Amino acid sequence: MKLSDLGEGGLIRQIRERFGPKTAHWPVGIGDDAAVIETPSGYSLVFCSDLLAENTHFIRDLHPADSIAYKAVASNVSDVAAMGGTATHFVISLAVPSDLDWSWFGAFFEGLESACRQFDIALAGGDSASADHIFVDVAMIGRVRHGQAVRRSGAKVGDGIYVTGTLGSSALGLERLKAGKTNDAAVRRHLFPEPRHTVGSAVLDKAHAMIDVSDGLSVDLNHILEESQVSARIYKDRLPIWPGAQEHHALHGGEEYELIVVASKLPADVAGIPLTRIGEIIESGMQHQLFLIDGATESVLIPRGWQHFQNR
Amino acid sequence: MKLSDLGEGGLIRQIRERFGPKTAHWPVGIGDDAAVIETPSGYSLVFCSDLLAENTHFIRDLHPADSIAYKAVASNVSDVAAMGGTATHFVISLAVPSDLDWSWFGAFFEGLESACRQFDIALAGGDSASADHIFVDVAMIGRVRHGQAVRRSGAKVGDGIYVTGTLGSSALGLERLKAGKTNDAAVRRHLFPEPRHTVGSAVLDKAHAMIDVSDGLSVDLNHILEESQVSARIYKDRLPIWPGAQEHHALHGGEEYELIVVASKLPADVAGIPLTRIGEIIESGMQHQLFLIDGATESVLIPRGWQHFQNR
Repeated sequence: MKLSDLGEGGLIRQIRERFGPKTAHWPVGIGDDAAVIETPSGYSLVFCSDLLAENTHFIRDLHPADSIAYKAVASNVSDVAAMGGTATHFVISLAVPSDLDWSWFGAFFEGLESACRQFDIALAGGDSASADHIFVDVAMIGRVRHGQAVRRSGAKVGDGIYVTGTLGSSALGLERLKAGKTNDAAVRRHLFPEPRHTVGSAVLDKAHAMIDVSDGLSVDLNHILEESQVSARIYKDRLPIWPGAQEHHALHGGEEYELIVVASKLPADVAGIPLTRIGEIIESGMQHQLFLIDGATESVLIPRGWQHFQNR
Repeated sequence: MKLSDLGEGGLIRQIRERFGPKTAHWPVGIGDDAAVIETPSGYSLVFCSDLLAENTHFIRDLHPADSIAYKAVASNVSDVAAMGGTATHFVISLAVPSDLDWSWFGAFFEGLESACRQFDIALAGGDSASADHIFVDVAMIGRVRHGQAVRRSGAKVGDGIYVTGTLGSSALGLERLKAGKTNDAAVRRHLFPEPRHTVGSAVLDKAHAMIDVSDGLSVDLNHILEESQVSARIYKDRLPIWPGAQEHHALHGGEEYELIVVASKLPADVAGIPLTRIGEIIESGMQHQLFLIDGATESVLIPRGWQHFQNR
């Protein structure tokens, strides 16, 4: 069955049946003009969006639809966590070719459901349309304790730089997926990453700055340096590299969804997730720079992760 | 200059400069992982999204970039108003080909700025990526007085059916635009529609059901009938048809962004916008149907407005 046999009304009915009220914080919503959601007092609202475009973020024949749906949600959950917040509700806008087979949607919905369960969040609504290519955009809201959001701009000289989990699995997994491997732990991490959705709010009181690794450690840590007007030193031998991954996977690989947390001191694990101190914030000279220390060698680490619109 | 000469960082810098803090309710946001927004007490949050895909909602050579940006925002403002709410903040996800000329963005930003001014709302953040076609998705949040959101499901037998403004200008304007006309009031309404952003919250106490005309009167009024489990009768000679538009433009034309308000009685204008009573809610027989009365003739009006994914 093609989507065109079902129509937009049929698609929305399927979504309402599948994602109808199930939890206490379920919003009035799917099928009306907008969702209506109660917000608890003592919290600020966190709001973001993250898109996935066919042939840029995924290849239709390579990436299964459940992974596409899951990642569209997970990347937003990660952004909310990187503010010290907790994601609660999302809307999804989905543009797809009319001749897309219905089985694609079955898998897509499974990925969405899996993300809702994993992160304890609710689908609140969205939009759908036909288009030449697949395009998925998720907008997420969440909450953060009032006045406690963690910005990119709060890093201070002398702070430690910490990362959750490991680095390099997603870039390695993508390489292996392209080579035809599917039954592999790195491939699975590439397809179904694990944003640290409980860590961000757990380090709220201690973190001076935070960002998630969506474009690569070298790119994302540089965002903190620019916003905080500082430089940093990280140590090659302290990087928690995924087994089998290489240095460039860990330094420049995107879609990791680990958190970079800058704080004076953090414990070795938070909410069951290991935290590794990989370096420290130092004073800036002329520019805000990131230095990589490899034994006795020190070099400037140029951001080489994912940057859209660049000529390569 | 092409977007690829500027890069993603350059694009975000331009947006931050152009849409930085200007108003009291400006969020912490653009350039961080997510925006942080304060929500007033006594209100519920309204949350929705609406997408525009190239070749489905617009043609690159026909629709100027400022219109695309403005409409992406306006359609969401309209959705929030249709819940009885007031839009406040939005995030925008934008996928564009890397070789798109920078002048396109200049016009796009002007459309965004114009929408921000017109509707007193703030850009809170978003995402951007390269893609084969242009894709714009806006997610909007707003507020509605606690417990007072107007659903599609509250229409009662005997209620009047009201519409704001006029119907038919957008469909007529699109026809004229395709025929090469640009200096025309209907074309202007098609490119820069006027959602009734102050009317929704003004009729909150009286409205039993509400929806905006985004897909066409016949489609959108039918959504109210289905959700409210009622039928309706509308009168051809009472339709407030845009001068020069034909019956089919008014009955089935989409992107009008007028509001359909169902209430026992409404004044002739609200917040300076005329309201016309076009019919009434009646009891359903076997099905929920919409009848069109034309003098002594009565016929079932089949929804013929815009429906995605349908074979036509």
